[in-house]
Amino acid sequence: MGDQYEVSEAGAGALAIPSLRWEEPPEGPVLVLLDQTRLPAEDVELVCTDVPALVQAIRTLAVRGAPLLGIAGAYGVALAAARGFDVDEATEALSQARPTAVNLGYGVRRAAGAYRAALAGGTDAPAAALAEARAVHAEDIEASRGMAQHGLALLGELLPGGGHRILTHCNTGALVSGGEGTALAVALAAHRAGELRRLWVDETRPLLQGARLTAYEAARAGMAYTVLSDGAAGSLFAGGEVDAVLIGADRIAADGSVANKVGSYPLAVLARYHHVPFVVVAPTSTVDLATEEGADIEVEQRPGQEVTEFSLPSAQGPGTAASGAIPVAPLGAQAYNPAFDVTPPELVTAIVTEAGVVSPVTREALAGVCSTSRWRKSRSGNGMMAK
Amino acid sequence: MGDQYEVSEAGAGALAIPSLRWEEPPEGPVLVLLDQTRLPAEDVELVCTDVPALVQAIRTLAVRGAPLLGIAGAYGVALAAARGFDVDEATEALSQARPTAVNLGYGVRRAAGAYRAALAGGTDAPAAALAEARAVHAEDIEASRGMAQHGLALLGELLPGGGHRILTHCNTGALVSGGEGTALAVALAAHRAGELRRLWVDETRPLLQGARLTAYEAARAGMAYTVLSDGAAGSLFAGGEVDAVLIGADRIAADGSVANKVGSYPLAVLARYHHVPFVVVAPTSTVDLATEEGADIEVEQRPGQEVTEFSLPSAQGPGTAASGAIPVAPLGAQAYNPAFDVTPPELVTAIVTEAGVVSPVTREALAGVCSTSRWRKSRSGNGMMAK
Repeated sequence: MGDQYEVSEAGAGALAIPSLRWEEPPEGPVLVLLDQTRLPAEDVELVCTDVPALVQAIRTLAVRGAPLLGIAGAYGVALAAARGFDVDEATEALSQARPTAVNLGYGVRRAAGAYRAALAGGTDAPAAALAEARAVHAEDIEASRGMAQHGLALLGELLPGGGHRILTHCNTGALVSGGEGTALAVALAAHRAGELRRLWVDETRPLLQGARLTAYEAARAGMAYTVLSDGAAGSLFAGGEVDAVLIGADRIAADGSVANKVGSYPLAVLARYHHVPFVVVAPTSTVDLATEEGADIEVEQRPGQEVTEFSLPSAQGPGTAASGAIPVAPLGAQAYNPAFDVTPPELVTAIVTEAGVVSPVTREALAGVCSTSRWRKSRSGNGMMAK
Repeated sequence: MGDQYEVSEAGAGALAIPSLRWEEPPEGPVLVLLDQTRLPAEDVELVCTDVPALVQAIRTLAVRGAPLLGIAGAYGVALAAARGFDVDEATEALSQARPTAVNLGYGVRRAAGAYRAALAGGTDAPAAALAEARAVHAEDIEASRGMAQHGLALLGELLPGGGHRILTHCNTGALVSGGEGTALAVALAAHRAGELRRLWVDETRPLLQGARLTAYEAARAGMAYTVLSDGAAGSLFAGGEVDAVLIGADRIAADGSVANKVGSYPLAVLARYHHVPFVVVAPTSTVDLATEEGADIEVEQRPGQEVTEFSLPSAQGPGTAASGAIPVAPLGAQAYNPAFDVTPPELVTAIVTEAGVVSPVTREALAGVCSTSRWRKSRSGNGMMAK
């Protein structure tokens, strides 16, 4: 079991903030999560001893972000297996916790597949599930490095003058990843290369992942950043203050349509109107070739109270009946609260993956980069399992 | 002094919510304001006995909205005059309270002009200032009716199928007006005519005037309304759920550029991209022919804490050192917080005024509708003063 801590150490090395870790105290294995709903006010960890607790943490966004959901889902299966719960039931519950997030299902399927294969082969099935979760985790750290490298090179091509002023939305950094994240990892690479003049941080209503989480990560990394209301991005574009938009993704359809945090699509339209590159950064595990096009992506609708009430960051997570919620709309007000929106491929300048950059965004180019990557992933996965 | 109460009654008749009124208790005249920062949680009135109190109420947005600021500014001058304060000083302080809001300066100039003319002519100058403030107030009620009528007709032309689904931003109803407001007055007219299927209410960060105030007015009027995060508007456009955008204005330049609450410009770009009419509703007093074009409009920058902190609706107004403020970004986070943005005329389908509709929006057509209206205004003003 020595390599458990090895992987964990590798993770800790790349992470400024440990958003998730597997631990094995004498009482039995647990998945420890940084509760992202309480940031930046408090650093509080949630200890999950079973899958229902993890599902609740996923639903309330205590753990969130495309790549991290994949890792969490895989460890969730490993947790159920290690503690002797019904693995099929756990797989089902985890897969359905958030419908749009493709990585969650991906991580769950990877760990569940390894579990079933080991069971069929008569080897240690819980150990196989855990090894696969660790593989998903390790691959994500590696993918994050690849995206940062490809993204930085792309920025250099798109903006040869340097001194980038990057607008980002939601949170896509170390908090969503085993590594340094997706879009924010690219911005961080630009910062380290001395190429980032300003990171414009959309606050990202309703749950303020930009103001709370991206600002928190940017501050820790010493980046020059400024928070803004989502609606103020228009003024920045109009004033010529944005050189590129960098966002993540929760699901990318086969045609290159990008489901990402609600508010991304308006940025894509603004970017197009102002001739500013709109760049999506996501691992190939976020690409869902089984979803043909944008219209086929199921968009999660979240409770209206996330809009009509303000939940104190230190209260129980959003989506729950928080005693600390303050109404900001009249009692009984109805709200429209999709978690994501879908940006069509024609508005996306490039999709940056760990396996390379897709630009222009076409069905063929996207399938191509995914096939390259799948080969690597499978090799890496086998490597981990062979240990 | 009988007609004081006459005008006040006329106002009350048209208003569901008395956002502002002049009173003359034995202790001396006062301007009573509904504190809009506390809505919808509490109906609290602020009693202003001097101009510094009114300036504070304007700065903290306790009283807000283009037409209402004109009325408040005019009554502010009348208040200074009636209580024997320095009227020039009051005029100066009121004019500078919010730089972008052209109506504020307009109302102040009207009352100050009447005061000075009476002073020069040896008649009762405080009474003249008050009469002029009442005239501004009465004209605004009338203008609101005119805008509603012209706007409803325009909607009928633009959307002959009826069953309008209207998206609006910020608050533009009875709370901002002596009458029923600007854009919201048009939506209300459509509602009364059985033509409004849905009012989409942008919550309007950072101060949530949509969620707090427009939803409050829509609920009282029995309109079918739904609140949304500003960033979710993109999904509505993409889904074909918006038939027209109706917004107000804080200043319209001579070329037809429209300064309005930040977040309006992104809606204009989205509307253009989706071939949806983008309609601005404002009285001609919001048109500033002395401002040549959009680039000349000074945009008020407000404190970053409005973005980085959440102020409890029942606490002291935003912009002040509220003890009830909850940080939503890391300590020391910098924020970009323009109060307004500027939409160029080429993105504006029509400007609806009390004197008629300007469409297409050209410098000449705008000047034309203003000249018509100025004649009426001047007649109406004189009429009031002759009483």
